[in-house]
Amino acid sequence: MSTKKDLEDERKKASFNVQEMTYLLDGGKQNSEEKQKFKDLVHKEKAFSKRDIIFLGRSDRYKRALERSQILAETVNKMKLSDEERTIMFEEVDEDLPLTTHYYLFVPTLENQCSEKQAKKWVPAARACKIIGCYAQTELGHGSNVRGLETTATYDPKTQEFVIHSPTTTSVKWWVGGLGKTSNVCVVFAQLILDGKNQGLYSFFVPLRSLEDHSKLPGIEFIGDIGPKFGFNAMDNGCVKFNQCRIPRTNMLARFAKVNKKGQLIQRSGVSSRVNYGTMVLMRANFVATAGVTLAKACTIATRYSAVRRQFNNSQNSHQEVQVIDYQTQQHRIFPLIAASYALYFVAGTMNEMYNDMMDELKNGKDVNVMNQKLALVHAISSGLKSLSTNMTSDGIEECRKCCGGHGYSQMSGLPYLYATFVHRNTAEGDNMILTQQVARYLFKSFKSQASTGQENKINKCNVSCEDDWVQNKGHYVSAYKHRVLRLVKENHNKPFDEILIDIAQLSRAHGMCVMVESFVKNCNHQGPIGVVLQKLCNLFALHHLEQDAAHYLEDGYMSGQQLQWIRNSVRKLLLELRPDAVALVDAFNFSDHYLNSALGKYDGDVYQALFDWIKEEPLNKSDVVDGYSQHLKPLIHSKL
Amino acid sequence: MSTKKDLEDERKKASFNVQEMTYLLDGGKQNSEEKQKFKDLVHKEKAFSKRDIIFLGRSDRYKRALERSQILAETVNKMKLSDEERTIMFEEVDEDLPLTTHYYLFVPTLENQCSEKQAKKWVPAARACKIIGCYAQTELGHGSNVRGLETTATYDPKTQEFVIHSPTTTSVKWWVGGLGKTSNVCVVFAQLILDGKNQGLYSFFVPLRSLEDHSKLPGIEFIGDIGPKFGFNAMDNGCVKFNQCRIPRTNMLARFAKVNKKGQLIQRSGVSSRVNYGTMVLMRANFVATAGVTLAKACTIATRYSAVRRQFNNSQNSHQEVQVIDYQTQQHRIFPLIAASYALYFVAGTMNEMYNDMMDELKNGKDVNVMNQKLALVHAISSGLKSLSTNMTSDGIEECRKCCGGHGYSQMSGLPYLYATFVHRNTAEGDNMILTQQVARYLFKSFKSQASTGQENKINKCNVSCEDDWVQNKGHYVSAYKHRVLRLVKENHNKPFDEILIDIAQLSRAHGMCVMVESFVKNCNHQGPIGVVLQKLCNLFALHHLEQDAAHYLEDGYMSGQQLQWIRNSVRKLLLELRPDAVALVDAFNFSDHYLNSALGKYDGDVYQALFDWIKEEPLNKSDVVDGYSQHLKPLIHSKL
Repeated sequence: MSTKKDLEDERKKASFNVQEMTYLLDGGKQNSEEKQKFKDLVHKEKAFSKRDIIFLGRSDRYKRALERSQILAETVNKMKLSDEERTIMFEEVDEDLPLTTHYYLFVPTLENQCSEKQAKKWVPAARACKIIGCYAQTELGHGSNVRGLETTATYDPKTQEFVIHSPTTTSVKWWVGGLGKTSNVCVVFAQLILDGKNQGLYSFFVPLRSLEDHSKLPGIEFIGDIGPKFGFNAMDNGCVKFNQCRIPRTNMLARFAKVNKKGQLIQRSGVSSRVNYGTMVLMRANFVATAGVTLAKACTIATRYSAVRRQFNNSQNSHQEVQVIDYQTQQHRIFPLIAASYALYFVAGTMNEMYNDMMDELKNGKDVNVMNQKLALVHAISSGLKSLSTNMTSDGIEECRKCCGGHGYSQMSGLPYLYATFVHRNTAEGDNMILTQQVARYLFKSFKSQASTGQENKINKCNVSCEDDWVQNKGHYVSAYKHRVLRLVKENHNKPFDEILIDIAQLSRAHGMCVMVESFVKNCNHQGPIGVVLQKLCNLFALHHLEQDAAHYLEDGYMSGQQLQWIRNSVRKLLLELRPDAVALVDAFNFSDHYLNSALGKYDGDVYQALFDWIKEEPLNKSDVVDGYSQHLKPLIHSKL
Repeated sequence: MSTKKDLEDERKKASFNVQEMTYLLDGGKQNSEEKQKFKDLVHKEKAFSKRDIIFLGRSDRYKRALERSQILAETVNKMKLSDEERTIMFEEVDEDLPLTTHYYLFVPTLENQCSEKQAKKWVPAARACKIIGCYAQTELGHGSNVRGLETTATYDPKTQEFVIHSPTTTSVKWWVGGLGKTSNVCVVFAQLILDGKNQGLYSFFVPLRSLEDHSKLPGIEFIGDIGPKFGFNAMDNGCVKFNQCRIPRTNMLARFAKVNKKGQLIQRSGVSSRVNYGTMVLMRANFVATAGVTLAKACTIATRYSAVRRQFNNSQNSHQEVQVIDYQTQQHRIFPLIAASYALYFVAGTMNEMYNDMMDELKNGKDVNVMNQKLALVHAISSGLKSLSTNMTSDGIEECRKCCGGHGYSQMSGLPYLYATFVHRNTAEGDNMILTQQVARYLFKSFKSQASTGQENKINKCNVSCEDDWVQNKGHYVSAYKHRVLRLVKENHNKPFDEILIDIAQLSRAHGMCVMVESFVKNCNHQGPIGVVLQKLCNLFALHHLEQDAAHYLEDGYMSGQQLQWIRNSVRKLLLELRPDAVALVDAFNFSDHYLNSALGKYDGDVYQALFDWIKEEPLNKSDVVDGYSQHLKPLIHSKL
């Protein structure tokens, strides 16, 4: 019984060319090759190996991550990598490093919000990591409601300084990535106080630690790490309590507003909020893409392991137990998640196009109304998809883990790490529940402005008339998804917001699903075997979720019990049809063993040997008799009782 | 804005007496007081504090756990605690210690499977921890399918010894709790080979480590820890590879079967399998109870924190932000989980009664048929409830964590720890998916034997005729739950098993829900305010899940869209009615701050100060300039670039 042979056999069954699919997922052969270059670079460097991170305690994890950060930063500098190349490299290193927020939050903030003079001074230093920074917005008692932030920046005209201060415990800046131990400077988001009056929130460049010896500066009452988290423990999310910390007047980020010597606020209006929206949209689009890659990783592990893991012998003709991937329940749990991964890849592409289109409009558009409309649309879609995609991936990783039985619970499966690292994305960058309100606001508003025309309003019965209809005409399920959105909008758009928050969450999900299904349908029109398998995946994705949410289509009579039964039958047929392609479909994501860091997900299928080898590195196994034996076990075993 | 005052105010709103509810949940005042005794004992002992475990690396975690184990074992011996008292004490210490499996798996196995002579020799030594043991069943390549185990015990008549051997990598004993570093003996489950013939699986008492110095014994090729897991990291789950390890013939556990000197197998038939079933049922009943307590912990944390956490200001009359527990979505996420916790407490009680009743029958019953029927019923129900309850709690903990926003992701919320520790229960002691098949087999069989009578078969329309019907007559929802089970049984009982695994999973869930709802209904008939609030919780639990699975009731026309809408309305009303009691309902679980180990779930509500205080203990914060700065950060900051 060779698990390696099992995977070899699976790969022979594939109906399509795996490399071709990889190119498609990567957005072209060139992208795949570019990625490969950085993969090779990362694999060559021993310090990037992730094998040890499951064994390291927090402080050692952090120190190892600093080492990786240093090598990365030096590579970026030495090879003069573009921002895009650096991103691919970070992707391949695949750990949340103390410098991640420096590069992806601090530097862009400086670039977006500094005056030209400030940018000249700070940006090159930041890019070279001669200053290392972070972005401090959230506080111990304040997250989603930004307006409630308590940190103050009070202008002192006598010295021409701002006094940054944390008046309460709840005002302590908290959760800030890279703030705890790594950063020596920080952009602080604070209430600007001029002559006793609160002027609203602005950003300030605040030195935190000495550039000489990294010791904390005066005015910093406490700075430190906020302690261990579910995951993300290589990153020093930190906190800082300011105590009358003084910075020069010229440290207020001055692209959109500044305070003059006399203490008067001078604003450049309008532009700032649109740019901020743009940044938010981009961030959320990245969340959608990451959700796709992460779910794809989990699926790769679960699929490969399910193909080599055998359990029970149902046949009298064979001595071998059955591959668990041949069980209907296992297929029903994993294959829709593979389909969802593909759906997320495609919709992330759609989001990127929308973002570029929007930025184009913002830069070159002439009609402010068109501009605002596009912004509102993209903002709503990105909010809804961020919420939907991160929930989908969180749940999906766990389902994959449970599909791996007992070994899924081992850190060597890679799945607990994947889960614990990913799930902060449900609450970060806009809590998923709160984001749903943005979607609803937009949909209600558009509905009201279009209400008189009654468009898309015609079909209120599903007209599928036999089982095959569901897979032969994608229009049937697209209509169903659209119908649900419209019905929920109609039922709720006139009710008080506070009383329909539950419905709003459902509406946002319904709308996100609609966007994903439409995007998948658009992306599966390919010739040849690739097209065939993508169409099946698309059908599976759409029909599986119709089944899951069937009540929404049954309750108003849009769909009949019979039509639902046809969906169930179609889903089961699709599972069987996709079975021979399962391993090939996850191979196409083209993840390296380094990247998966999973004994169960190994490309060669030699999973049991991999587990047995890996545990030799467990620190507890470094000695035969464990530390603690003589103090705590021997007294019991040798007791006279 | 005092978070302490928020909780004080909440407690004043309660409609019922919290202590009275605690007594009810504990099964009586006496039980509550007994528990309190051990709580006090645990809180007095500094070594039991859990504050540091979130900071410790694996080896230190294990060593701390050994220390706790030693103190516990010494307390058990010194105070001569009964098994019940010891269990309460373990419960209160609330960590999975290296000695847990010794007490709860190894000792009972010896007591159940030893001959009298063996028991005399080994049981007192094991109870006094002079030998420390574990139970080795699962192997690297073999979990649920016990028959596939590969480890062999070959009898050598020349020396009158068994030779225990691991012939392959997949045969290495794996996952065994306490095996890695702690145990010096082990019960091994292996294929008995007599004269070249496989006789099936039997248990053997195998010494692993020297009782003198704890070094590993000859015949043990490798023994060690299986590495870090998602949670449970104080426990040394271990592995062992045997290489022709010889043990005396008399080390085969001989209550039900033994091998005589000549190598002949002598069995006492029948009894063994029933006792084994009994043990399994008890184990699963414990899983259900633990699921209830664990979900209750998560709810306590989420509810208290939601009552003190404030976000956004919707009113123009107030300067304060809104308590997040006042948002409809927050109530909709948390309150059904509080109701589910209560439901799990009650159904765990029901399970216990059934178990005792069954054991009574096994001991005193005279009719083998009645005996077997009872066994089959209790086995099916315990399998289904184990699967349902552990899934419910896993999902529920995560929902609670997400309800706590960003801070839910911190280990100081207590929620990641709770989740990571709990979720192995989805796959352990019978994988949840596989267990559903046991339920279906039982239901199909009973249906077939009762088919001709057509009982409970009459109602196939829900006859709710107005919104209030749903809450005024619990019979309506009980009928709905029963109807679903019956329909799924009818539709599937004649189909090939392999083709309906998906339906079987749904059927098992449907049946478990039915049992839970009926048990809740029985348990809420109390006089006075306690009865009133329990009835509301029961209604919420039943109706919320009807709503979640509505498609099952709509698709065959059992329920109408209008009736579903009435359910939705009822659920929302119940949320508002339960709102003033939310904090009191979780207070009634009576968990100590030690037990919750959560800054967000603190009884006094002083959550932000608790977070700020706790992080001072983070090792990274022990020095201002972090270890790693001079090696990895300074070179970047001081570079000449």
